[in-house]
Amino acid sequence: MPDKLIRIQRQTGDAPRRRPVMIAIAGDSAAGKTTLTSGLVATLGPDRVTAICVDDYHRYDREERKPLPFTALHPDCNYLDIMEQHLQLLAAGHPILKPVYDHGTGQLARPELVSPAEFVVVEGLLPLHSKLSRACFDIAIYLDPPEEIRHGWKVRRDTEKRGYREEQVRAELRRREPESAAYIRPQRAAADIVVRFAPIPGRDDPPGTPLSGELLLRPTIRHPDLSVVLDGRRTVHVRLNRDTDGRPVDALHIHGYASAEETALVRRAIWPQLGLPGEPPGSLGDLGGGRRSEPLAITQLLLLHHLLGAAETQHAAFAAATP
Amino acid sequence: MPDKLIRIQRQTGDAPRRRPVMIAIAGDSAAGKTTLTSGLVATLGPDRVTAICVDDYHRYDREERKPLPFTALHPDCNYLDIMEQHLQLLAAGHPILKPVYDHGTGQLARPELVSPAEFVVVEGLLPLHSKLSRACFDIAIYLDPPEEIRHGWKVRRDTEKRGYREEQVRAELRRREPESAAYIRPQRAAADIVVRFAPIPGRDDPPGTPLSGELLLRPTIRHPDLSVVLDGRRTVHVRLNRDTDGRPVDALHIHGYASAEETALVRRAIWPQLGLPGEPPGSLGDLGGGRRSEPLAITQLLLLHHLLGAAETQHAAFAAATP
Repeated sequence: MPDKLIRIQRQTGDAPRRRPVMIAIAGDSAAGKTTLTSGLVATLGPDRVTAICVDDYHRYDREERKPLPFTALHPDCNYLDIMEQHLQLLAAGHPILKPVYDHGTGQLARPELVSPAEFVVVEGLLPLHSKLSRACFDIAIYLDPPEEIRHGWKVRRDTEKRGYREEQVRAELRRREPESAAYIRPQRAAADIVVRFAPIPGRDDPPGTPLSGELLLRPTIRHPDLSVVLDGRRTVHVRLNRDTDGRPVDALHIHGYASAEETALVRRAIWPQLGLPGEPPGSLGDLGGGRRSEPLAITQLLLLHHLLGAAETQHAAFAAATP
Repeated sequence: MPDKLIRIQRQTGDAPRRRPVMIAIAGDSAAGKTTLTSGLVATLGPDRVTAICVDDYHRYDREERKPLPFTALHPDCNYLDIMEQHLQLLAAGHPILKPVYDHGTGQLARPELVSPAEFVVVEGLLPLHSKLSRACFDIAIYLDPPEEIRHGWKVRRDTEKRGYREEQVRAELRRREPESAAYIRPQRAAADIVVRFAPIPGRDDPPGTPLSGELLLRPTIRHPDLSVVLDGRRTVHVRLNRDTDGRPVDALHIHGYASAEETALVRRAIWPQLGLPGEPPGSLGDLGGGRRSEPLAITQLLLLHHLLGAAETQHAAFAAATP
């Protein structure tokens, strides 16, 4: 009944609603999504950021999944239509009642109310799966570590925190590989920034050398101009490159052995532009367990630059629309 | 970012979507909502009807509610904004991930996917609480038994099925009374049909006399013309009446001791108009436990008449909008 839809619209009203800036952090299991997110939340403060994980949209609990012919990575194993619906609602500034998957017990729990703060960070396996979900984001990130490194991270996390044995984790990784290839990795093409923490190819660095960071800065969003500050630097630099599909792209390299002096240069170039009080906090670059990564810190600074820039545009639009 | 909302809209598309006919069945605890609903679902068939209970939108589980200064009837004790959101989504033909409250354990469980069928029956304590929720319905019913009768029903159900003792139920009813008055009963004013099963006032019928039905048929929706079939009948009749606020209203009376002959007249007048195959099923008027009520059966027939009539209008509108 169109007249009913009109009645509903009349009740919802036309008042402009404050909408959040939304960032997707997509990537395979143990690709570093939560580590990347934590530094953003800690720097902006939990009051300004709502962080959700879309793996909560699992359709089945762990027991129910066992006899199924696909893994938790498969779109059919998730309520992706509801995920899309909830992303749309959040993007429009509405609260949602989000499902909750408990990684500890493997069970689906009672849902929780999520109201979008100024920023919404959406991490998970499939946030960039569909055109509709992608349309909900202002900034899209894909975490793309080399597979052998990600496998190592997953083994460590799942044995230390989730009670699995190493051979179980490796078997699960093998079982998931076809679905990783089919559903997770294609999201790389939809990202504005592809983040890769890895050893530098072709170098035979000794074990324990910190990983370097390579960030593909695709021209799908406007990136800050770092060329001046980085001109002539050896361990932090931007180079014009070709993307895997041949399209031109800027590649920001932060070497794992970059000197504190050179990374400090980048921090000092970006931080004042953010308009945040004080000095860059120690949570930037925090890997947990007392370890730090300069490439991670600079990646997080760059994402903060994008988030705060988008928020400024957003506030201006809201102010213009409000009488 | 308005451009983001436009991107989202472009992805959701403009194709007309089949929308369900929605009926609200509001009323206090143990007012007979589920009994009324069951006959509708059984007659139309579960494939054509989605029945939900909005008491599932409880914000707290039973333990969490104990120290709170209000009962489950209070709007603040429920996610009413999410209920409104979900009713809007259903009204527009979208699925929802509905929260689930387990009356047995008093706990909130994992949510469940609900896709709207051709008809959506929404029963519960507060479906007509707000203007926005009311706008989502094509037909709104309020169940209005006399309080002493409802208390008796609640004592019986909660002692037999939910493991309470009678004095516990009576204490809970006293505790809830202010909130019943403040939040439940005001919904009566928003109903298109007010249904009251009660003894006939002023008569001293012996115990065990079946309850009569009085249906206020408000002119907010178009009711079938029963005057011809009921003309001159004594135990089933329509009378012009005044509503509690003085406005004119038709009142359909079905006496509890109506003869089978007279109620059959009404059935035969309404049933063929519904376009359903066969004879009126035995589920109409079923009170459970092998007991039946003719006034309930006729109430359900009248609601089916409204539901199927609204569906016809709906189908015509959908056909007109589809190329």
